[in-house]
Amino acid sequence: MSTITIRDGLIVTQDAKRRILRGSVVIEDSVIASVGAKADKSDVVIDAGDRVVLPGLINMHTHVGMSMLRGMVPNDNLDVFLKKTSEFDSRNTKEMIEVSTLLGAEEMLMSGTTSFLDLYYSEDVIADAVAGTGLRAYLSWVALDEKFTTQKGVPIKNAEKFLKGYAGKPLVTPSVGLQGVYVCSKDTVSQAFDLAKKYDTIVHMHLSETMREVHDHAGKYGERPVAWMGKNGFLSDRLVAAHCVWLEDAEMIALAKAGATPVYNPISNARLGSGVADVKKMLKRRIHVAIGTDSTASNDNLDLLQDMKFGALINNLAPQDVLDMATVNAAKALRLDAGSIESGKKADIILLDRAGAFMSPTGTRNAVSNIVYAAEGRSVSISIIDGKVVLDGGVLLSKKFDGISEKAGRLAENLWASAK
Amino acid sequence: MSTITIRDGLIVTQDAKRRILRGSVVIEDSVIASVGAKADKSDVVIDAGDRVVLPGLINMHTHVGMSMLRGMVPNDNLDVFLKKTSEFDSRNTKEMIEVSTLLGAEEMLMSGTTSFLDLYYSEDVIADAVAGTGLRAYLSWVALDEKFTTQKGVPIKNAEKFLKGYAGKPLVTPSVGLQGVYVCSKDTVSQAFDLAKKYDTIVHMHLSETMREVHDHAGKYGERPVAWMGKNGFLSDRLVAAHCVWLEDAEMIALAKAGATPVYNPISNARLGSGVADVKKMLKRRIHVAIGTDSTASNDNLDLLQDMKFGALINNLAPQDVLDMATVNAAKALRLDAGSIESGKKADIILLDRAGAFMSPTGTRNAVSNIVYAAEGRSVSISIIDGKVVLDGGVLLSKKFDGISEKAGRLAENLWASAK
Repeated sequence: MSTITIRDGLIVTQDAKRRILRGSVVIEDSVIASVGAKADKSDVVIDAGDRVVLPGLINMHTHVGMSMLRGMVPNDNLDVFLKKTSEFDSRNTKEMIEVSTLLGAEEMLMSGTTSFLDLYYSEDVIADAVAGTGLRAYLSWVALDEKFTTQKGVPIKNAEKFLKGYAGKPLVTPSVGLQGVYVCSKDTVSQAFDLAKKYDTIVHMHLSETMREVHDHAGKYGERPVAWMGKNGFLSDRLVAAHCVWLEDAEMIALAKAGATPVYNPISNARLGSGVADVKKMLKRRIHVAIGTDSTASNDNLDLLQDMKFGALINNLAPQDVLDMATVNAAKALRLDAGSIESGKKADIILLDRAGAFMSPTGTRNAVSNIVYAAEGRSVSISIIDGKVVLDGGVLLSKKFDGISEKAGRLAENLWASAK
Repeated sequence: MSTITIRDGLIVTQDAKRRILRGSVVIEDSVIASVGAKADKSDVVIDAGDRVVLPGLINMHTHVGMSMLRGMVPNDNLDVFLKKTSEFDSRNTKEMIEVSTLLGAEEMLMSGTTSFLDLYYSEDVIADAVAGTGLRAYLSWVALDEKFTTQKGVPIKNAEKFLKGYAGKPLVTPSVGLQGVYVCSKDTVSQAFDLAKKYDTIVHMHLSETMREVHDHAGKYGERPVAWMGKNGFLSDRLVAAHCVWLEDAEMIALAKAGATPVYNPISNARLGSGVADVKKMLKRRIHVAIGTDSTASNDNLDLLQDMKFGALINNLAPQDVLDMATVNAAKALRLDAGSIESGKKADIILLDRAGAFMSPTGTRNAVSNIVYAAEGRSVSISIIDGKVVLDGGVLLSKKFDGISEKAGRLAENLWASAK
């Protein structure tokens, strides 16, 4: 058995009482063995006197396979954006997806994300690319009606092939994706939920992102997207729905009742002018909200701390609520036994440098506020995933990232040269 | 003569044509000698092949003397906020101001700020504390009516003493400050502008920050603050006015005509629920807008890159306009011969790591977008101020920062213990 002791930290546990403790965390293999108690000897001892110890952050909506598009798409609305990114997708090669994945994984790991939920095709390529980096990957193969796709083959069949082929691989959990009701018939949505039930996993989709999506859907089906989903039996705790910017009160109540998880993507929604999700009201309705970055094409970072700050600011949210979205709420939606620092939980833990210029001074009294409002990616000094140290002193330990940025630069130059 | 060559960089010049060049920048002593040309030998050669080279950022509104208040004041409105921070100010000691100043200077330098404009009392303590760090400091001693102040002595006299005592000190430029029309009579405002003229400097103040300030002023004087300033002859290119959230169109036109500089503080305004300054309209009116962080008490970082991203997002601004606010516009308002990379300008230059996970890939095509939307504090690898390297490899060279965060932690614990 391998053991790690994180000694003398300021521990933001995120347990049921949201306790903040001073003390040690002991990890045995991939699991947290004890919290707060004095520790015996360990294989590895981490002195956390200057650190805030908290559960790893969970990025609940992104598309890592597009990371190379950073800064390439101006602030257009979603329709123009999707036309441009879809043109890119049709030219995206296996090598480009691999490089984008590692670029995205690097940025997430360096800014405190320990798990992410992705939505794309070619999730097999993404799973293989991310393997060995130490990052925990939840990958949803996107399905949509055949007539709209840039994928080879039938999307829903590709999704099932991925679910079968990648079950049980370490740190990878496959799931089902849907692009959105604007390119998915009732039949496609139904097939996706059938698959999710068959393989006991989640359905991850875009939902009610723009006013246009909602109005077009209402015009075509006589019902707004979430209402339509409810009527057809698609709302459940398997549903993770990115954006949810345009919801009527009845739709919020339906999401809450079903135990579905909307994902707040405040930076992407602002960048594309989609609107501001009314998360304050969602929380009042006791909806289980998570938070995500979306892709670099509309963010332009995969640093969840940025979305936490921006999202708190534009909706005037309590820092504790935002930290919950990024940890316990997300873990519950993913059925991941993590998101808090408690004995028996998976050891997904990050350490923030509270003595650094960006967070100092931080004590018990302002720890949660400073995590949400003051921590930057650079504040993350150590990251432990599944009981293994993957980032130490702000430096990634996996060799997989070597030379990635140079490759990305070279591929991007080619891409730009061939673009109109 | 000492010389530095920054070789083979991607240079975002911010010159009149906003050219982006590949090439070298040569610095002779404190001044830029050439841009783009091949360089002969230099005392120091910096290889910038993986870097974006751009003018140092200018933080046009902050209160560094309050940095220790990070994360200590919840999201209250400005009235409650001012009550709390004023209570803190009355207990702020010289040591605490020194420590706060260095904490703030450290964070600014590490995130690409090369000049900052401060508004506070005790600017003499701040000037002495910041001396030797390498940061360029514009310090406005705040005046307000005697009956409202926590300062010892008469504020306007303190301001003049500071103007006299700190003229000509290296990297320090004293100026006059005003807290705001809610605690400054017409007489106080008039005295401040007289002082500014006498010492040929600027007046730096809070203006039209909250709806309440505007309504109270209109109720008392029959005129909104900016209109009232105009009527009394206080609008000129000497005026740097933080916030300007609540402006009517006629007030915008008056500010534009006078050549005054409003300072956009998007994060602080969101944190305190003050509103969103209509910068899009200001730019249409050809107002000369700058950008600032405000203090850690309402931000909670002094990383201007965050405000640039947040400010671009909530007003859907073009990245070039935002970069202009942080460089050329700010320099003009401060009468500082910097803000662009052109021969003859002061050598205030930063280098961003475009190969890092947070900015990659960056080329000519997306450089400005990635500076505004993707760069984080950690992207800043080198900072040169007045021709001297002050940050190298992300590490500050001044010894003045040693042990500051520990001191801040200790002082904060005392402060919190004594607070209710």
